[in-house]
Amino acid sequence: MKLPLSIIATGKALPSERLLSSDLDARLGLQTGTVAKKSGIQWRYFASAEQTQSQLAAEALQDACQHHGIDTNSIDLLICASAIPEQVLPNTASAVIQAAGLKNGLAAFDVNASCISFMTALFQAAALLQTKVYRRIAIVSAEIASRGLNWDDAESSFIFGDGAAAVIVEAGDGIAACVAQRLEVHPVGRTFCQIKAGGTQRNPRMGLLETDHYFQMQGKPVFKLASQLLPAFIHNLFSDLPYTFHEVDWVVPHQASHLSMEHLKNRLGLDSQKIIDIYATHGNQVAASMPMALHELYRSGKTQSGQKVLLIGTAAGFAMGGMVLSL
Amino acid sequence: MKLPLSIIATGKALPSERLLSSDLDARLGLQTGTVAKKSGIQWRYFASAEQTQSQLAAEALQDACQHHGIDTNSIDLLICASAIPEQVLPNTASAVIQAAGLKNGLAAFDVNASCISFMTALFQAAALLQTKVYRRIAIVSAEIASRGLNWDDAESSFIFGDGAAAVIVEAGDGIAACVAQRLEVHPVGRTFCQIKAGGTQRNPRMGLLETDHYFQMQGKPVFKLASQLLPAFIHNLFSDLPYTFHEVDWVVPHQASHLSMEHLKNRLGLDSQKIIDIYATHGNQVAASMPMALHELYRSGKTQSGQKVLLIGTAAGFAMGGMVLSL
Repeated sequence: MKLPLSIIATGKALPSERLLSSDLDARLGLQTGTVAKKSGIQWRYFASAEQTQSQLAAEALQDACQHHGIDTNSIDLLICASAIPEQVLPNTASAVIQAAGLKNGLAAFDVNASCISFMTALFQAAALLQTKVYRRIAIVSAEIASRGLNWDDAESSFIFGDGAAAVIVEAGDGIAACVAQRLEVHPVGRTFCQIKAGGTQRNPRMGLLETDHYFQMQGKPVFKLASQLLPAFIHNLFSDLPYTFHEVDWVVPHQASHLSMEHLKNRLGLDSQKIIDIYATHGNQVAASMPMALHELYRSGKTQSGQKVLLIGTAAGFAMGGMVLSL
Repeated sequence: MKLPLSIIATGKALPSERLLSSDLDARLGLQTGTVAKKSGIQWRYFASAEQTQSQLAAEALQDACQHHGIDTNSIDLLICASAIPEQVLPNTASAVIQAAGLKNGLAAFDVNASCISFMTALFQAAALLQTKVYRRIAIVSAEIASRGLNWDDAESSFIFGDGAAAVIVEAGDGIAACVAQRLEVHPVGRTFCQIKAGGTQRNPRMGLLETDHYFQMQGKPVFKLASQLLPAFIHNLFSDLPYTFHEVDWVVPHQASHLSMEHLKNRLGLDSQKIIDIYATHGNQVAASMPMALHELYRSGKTQSGQKVLLIGTAAGFAMGGMVLSL
C-alpha cells in the first residue's frame, strides 16, 4: 500500500491552567513527589470553566494555519477526531466550524475511535484525498478530560490532561505517503476504560448515577491485554514493509501512561531517542495525545524527507491502531 | 467522480413495541387522529428497557448477512454511523462487535454526522475500498431516540422512532458506483436541534439539568433554513453529472418530518413514486432512517442495474448531505 499523504501543517492549543503534580500532593495531603512518582507526570493542563472543546480545537487549527501561512478558507473538509464530544448532538465538528470561523457550508464530520481517533481520521483523510473530492483536509482532536475525572480515583485523576492539536494534510507530490495501517478492536476489554453516561444506556429514563459521568479505568487489565496483543499487532502492521519496527526513524505513540511509554522502550526495545515522549509535561490527553506528539515532532524541525514515522496507540474499546508514514 | 461501490446486502431491525399515534391520542387525552394529523405518522417502534442500541445494530447486521448468505467473518471493517452513541466512551462500534459476535480484532470505528451519518460513512467506505485495505465493509446505524424524548414537547415526541439498519458494501466489478457526493455544514443552525448533555459542556462539574438529556428541536427554523439552502445544494450535487435531479430513478431521503417529505414532492417537484417514503410507519429514526429506507428499496426487488439512486437529507448541525449512486 502507498497512499499519498503530505502533512502540510500542525498546530496545538493548551489551556492556560497548569496543574503541577506537586501542587496535587499538597492538595491531597500527600508527601511531595507522591503524585509524580505514581503517575510519571510533572504537570498537565486543565481548561477553565469558560473554555470549550471547540474553542481549543479552533486555537489549534489557527496555530497550524498561522504558522504555515494557510488560509482557513482553503480547507475543504474538517474531521473532528476526539474521543469525547462537546455535546451529544449535533457533532463537535459543527461547533468547531463556528469557533474557528471556518467557511459556512464546509464539509465536516466526527470520527470516534476513542484514544486513536486521530490516526483513524488520518487514514480516512488519505483515502478521501485519493477521490479528489477533497484536496486539503484538517483533522483536529480536542479533549477536556478534566471534566470527567473522578477525584476519588487516583489511577485516572493523576494522569489525564486537556488540550487540542490539529494537522492539515494534502495528497502532495506522491512521495510522502501512508505505507501501512492497522486497526483492531477487541471488545473483551470494552469495559476496562469507559464513561457510562452520554448515550442511550444511562440517562434519566434508564437510570443515571453521578459516577456514570466519570471516566472509569482499570489500568492493569488494559496494560496486560495491550502487552499480550502488541507483538502480533506490530508484526502484522509491518508484514508488507521492507523494513522492521526497529528501523523507523520516529515513533509517535499515544501517551497513555508512564507504564505504556516505558513498555515501548524496555519490552519492545525501541531506542528512546526515537520516541516522542511528551507525557511528563502533558499527561494523557486522550485523543489529542497523538496529534500533539506529532506536532511536537514536526515543530522541532528534526524530520527529514524520506524518514519513516510510526504512529501507534491503544484505546478504550479495547482498540489498537498503527500507521507507518514515509515522509 | 466514479468510485466503485456495490451494495451487496441490506438488513433492518425494529423493536417489538409499536406505538400507534391513536394510542398516543388516548394517552394524552387528545381527540382521536390529532397526533397522526400533526405528525403524519400512523405508528413507530420503541425499544423496551432491556434492548440496547448495539443489540438492534447486531440484529440488523444479522438480517443483512442471513438474507444474503454472507458469513459475518468475511466483514473486515465495521462503521457505526449513529447520531447518538450507546455510551460516551468507548465508541458504539466496539459494543456492536460484541453484540453481533463479529470477529475479535475487527477494524471498527464510529462516524457521526448526526442524521446523515449513514451517507457520510457510505462515502468513506467507497474511498476506503479503493485502498484495498478493506474489501467488505459493513455500515450500521442504530438509534433509540425514545430515550431522549421530552414528552412535554409535542413537536419532537410525536415523530421520533427507534430502529436499526445495516448495509454491506464492496468495490464490486466497477459498474455500480458512487458518482456524486456533497456534504455541507452550516453552523448558523447548530442549536436548532440538539441534546446538550453527554459531553464536556453539560455534566455534573459544569452544571446539568434533566432537560439537557432530552432532544430539543425548533422545527420551523430548520425547515426554513433547509428550504433556503436545498436548491443550490442540489444544483451543486448534480453539477458534474450528465442528468438532472429529476432524472434519477429513486430518491432515498432522510425521513425527517411530514413537512420535509412533502417538500420533496411539492416544492422540489419530484415524482412521488420515486420517493422511498417509510415515514408514516417508522417516524424519524434519526441516522437509521436513511439506511432503513434504502433497505426497503433494495428488499422490494424493484432496483435494476444501471438505475440512479439519490440519497439526500438534512441533519442537526445544521448539515445537508447528498449522494448519487449508479447501480
